[in-house]
Amino acid sequence: MAAPAPLSPLAPKKYPALPVIEGVRFASVAAGVRYAGRTDVMMALFDQPAQVAGVFTRSKCPSAPVDWCREKLKGGLARAVVVNSGNANAFTGHRGLSAVEEIGQAVARATGASADQVFMASTGVIGEPLEASRITRVLETLATDAEPDGMMDAARAIMTTDTFPKVAARTIKLGEADVHIAGIAKGAGMIAPDMATMLSFVFTDAPVAAPVLQTLLSKSVQTSFNAITVDSDTSTSDTLMLFSTGAARTRGAPEITDAADPRLGPFKRALDKVLLDLAQQVVRDGEGARHFVEVRVEGAASRKGAKRIAMSIANSPLVKTAVAGEDANWGRVVAAVGKAGEKAERDKLDISFGKIRVAHAGLRDPDYDEAAVSTYMKGQNIVITVNLGLGSGKAKVWTCDLTKEYVAINGDYRS
Amino acid sequence: MAAPAPLSPLAPKKYPALPVIEGVRFASVAAGVRYAGRTDVMMALFDQPAQVAGVFTRSKCPSAPVDWCREKLKGGLARAVVVNSGNANAFTGHRGLSAVEEIGQAVARATGASADQVFMASTGVIGEPLEASRITRVLETLATDAEPDGMMDAARAIMTTDTFPKVAARTIKLGEADVHIAGIAKGAGMIAPDMATMLSFVFTDAPVAAPVLQTLLSKSVQTSFNAITVDSDTSTSDTLMLFSTGAARTRGAPEITDAADPRLGPFKRALDKVLLDLAQQVVRDGEGARHFVEVRVEGAASRKGAKRIAMSIANSPLVKTAVAGEDANWGRVVAAVGKAGEKAERDKLDISFGKIRVAHAGLRDPDYDEAAVSTYMKGQNIVITVNLGLGSGKAKVWTCDLTKEYVAINGDYRS
Repeated sequence: MAAPAPLSPLAPKKYPALPVIEGVRFASVAAGVRYAGRTDVMMALFDQPAQVAGVFTRSKCPSAPVDWCREKLKGGLARAVVVNSGNANAFTGHRGLSAVEEIGQAVARATGASADQVFMASTGVIGEPLEASRITRVLETLATDAEPDGMMDAARAIMTTDTFPKVAARTIKLGEADVHIAGIAKGAGMIAPDMATMLSFVFTDAPVAAPVLQTLLSKSVQTSFNAITVDSDTSTSDTLMLFSTGAARTRGAPEITDAADPRLGPFKRALDKVLLDLAQQVVRDGEGARHFVEVRVEGAASRKGAKRIAMSIANSPLVKTAVAGEDANWGRVVAAVGKAGEKAERDKLDISFGKIRVAHAGLRDPDYDEAAVSTYMKGQNIVITVNLGLGSGKAKVWTCDLTKEYVAINGDYRS
Repeated sequence: MAAPAPLSPLAPKKYPALPVIEGVRFASVAAGVRYAGRTDVMMALFDQPAQVAGVFTRSKCPSAPVDWCREKLKGGLARAVVVNSGNANAFTGHRGLSAVEEIGQAVARATGASADQVFMASTGVIGEPLEASRITRVLETLATDAEPDGMMDAARAIMTTDTFPKVAARTIKLGEADVHIAGIAKGAGMIAPDMATMLSFVFTDAPVAAPVLQTLLSKSVQTSFNAITVDSDTSTSDTLMLFSTGAARTRGAPEITDAADPRLGPFKRALDKVLLDLAQQVVRDGEGARHFVEVRVEGAASRKGAKRIAMSIANSPLVKTAVAGEDANWGRVVAAVGKAGEKAERDKLDISFGKIRVAHAGLRDPDYDEAAVSTYMKGQNIVITVNLGLGSGKAKVWTCDLTKEYVAINGDYRS
């Protein structure tokens, strides 16, 4: 195994205090799935079945655990979630399915849950069979040890080549009661030699019914996890789940069974923030990342068009290497706009780096100061704004730069 | 200016003898558009108006010369082509259009052509106005100096950061007569700091009418220039043109006015070969390329699906860095298949590197020899074959690996 990578220079400077989400407890353990000397299996255990929602990879070759979760999600209830790092149990065929089945049944036994209320995810090496026994033998311990304040340790247990654990939380009002949302995530972008997968698990005590959670999650993911890219590669195992224990109802929080309920406003906004915070942390831990990049597209013919253009810019290797080189290379931004296949008119394009407009109406901006933009590009956070001058469609997406370290990390010999 | 990059290790070991295409002459000159000490403007001059066909970038923000060529192509006749390197005249707004107009009229005067029969292309820096006078002042010289055997020098004059000139040729029978096809190209993939564009110009003496040339070119480009990728970035200026002088008719070659004419068979196949040869040379000169990669997708539900999956693999940064690292990382190939959005079933996938099958029917192939595949990956030419096991759709595409040198070349400070 390679030595752990140094902490990303874009890592958060401090962690938030994580609220306890009443009704869920966490445990993690060093099970030796692949790594030595660190935790690699975590369990989230609900005192009562929680309402659950999920979104999964769009890959046409999903991993065995993703297939399992999609099936179980139909019941809308969760008693336990088990996640391992070190092995993705992806492209492992019938053996992969058997391992998932074996682990699912073992989790049910260890926790007293129905297997239909067990969820799981795996991240790590692709194509190597997952030895189910490595996980099944630690389940009793996990169920016994689970504690309300174990969320930060759970965030550590699901890391693969992440250089920092990713957590986010918000507390808001639902009716008159304080309710909490807190979540964990691990790295994106098929991030390491043989490693894969973005995973995120978000918990709340707000009494919100599963169909409502699903509506909110499916919407919020569009502007958070589906608006980030490290290297345009989609994992076979991407998983984002949202669980509600409903425990805040004992503190007077109202039951929410309709996504249009006006009392949901603060909860929706807080959920958006938690997901965006986690998603941006994933970008900040992109392999070799030295700059965090926000791409804003405005004035597009439609919101969908804006997002496609923004993603085209964010995925352009030439734009990403230019940011790595601290070069305000707007010609490459133009090229990325052009190749997106969406409506664009060269002579109406404005492009800015930060607040410095470098191109206006189809020409290099005559007022633009190369020295000022050069100073701006040396910063850690870069905002690229493109105004298409066509309509009111807008979108924001986030990415990181493409550095030699990315190639080194991903191109090192496996053996 | 940076020092010229060393010759690509994937460069052809020798050049073919280029046939003289009767009816067209070439000249090139050092005009000082941007570079010093090298030629940077070339002219192809037809003795009589040639039949012409073209395909251009799909970018929604095409360069001014591309707009010009698309318009003039409607006439179907060409007397002169002028191409400069050093400045792409792209994203230069109205000044760019004026420069194109000025150069077009000047070429017409210098060659006695109608401006409607003048074609042009520019490649180099984006967003900087092109000084038309740098080009117009050398046109008389070019028209005077044009020689039948100047094609190799023309290939040199259109290079930007290409490390070798790209030429290809074939001689075949049309009816009873020998006819020739010969062409030149320059590098792909938005290939250098501020540089852009794939350009290719192909010439034949076969008497083939413009609409037939267009049909053949539009088809052939799908399996050649549209089946290569260096970094997935599309230039604003990509241009491929095919010119027929028809001079072989004096040697008895028949006039061809129908794309379905059975006598065209050898010509079609030779054109396919010339275009594929040029396109592959472009990949072989991809920035930082150390490995030439052929991606074959077979057994797909459709040909279109096969090509989309092949491009998804060829554009995956993780697959490309794995090839750079000489790592047969089929897990990343699976992920790239999955993200293509086309029909695929995990449990039916076969993946091979060269002739070594590494994954079969959803599992690591139990017979695969890590040492053998490791030796294979050290070679310069890598073939990745994916069989989807679904239907009969197939496609081949070509790319190069993604190396630290690519990032270094594209991430170097502009200033």
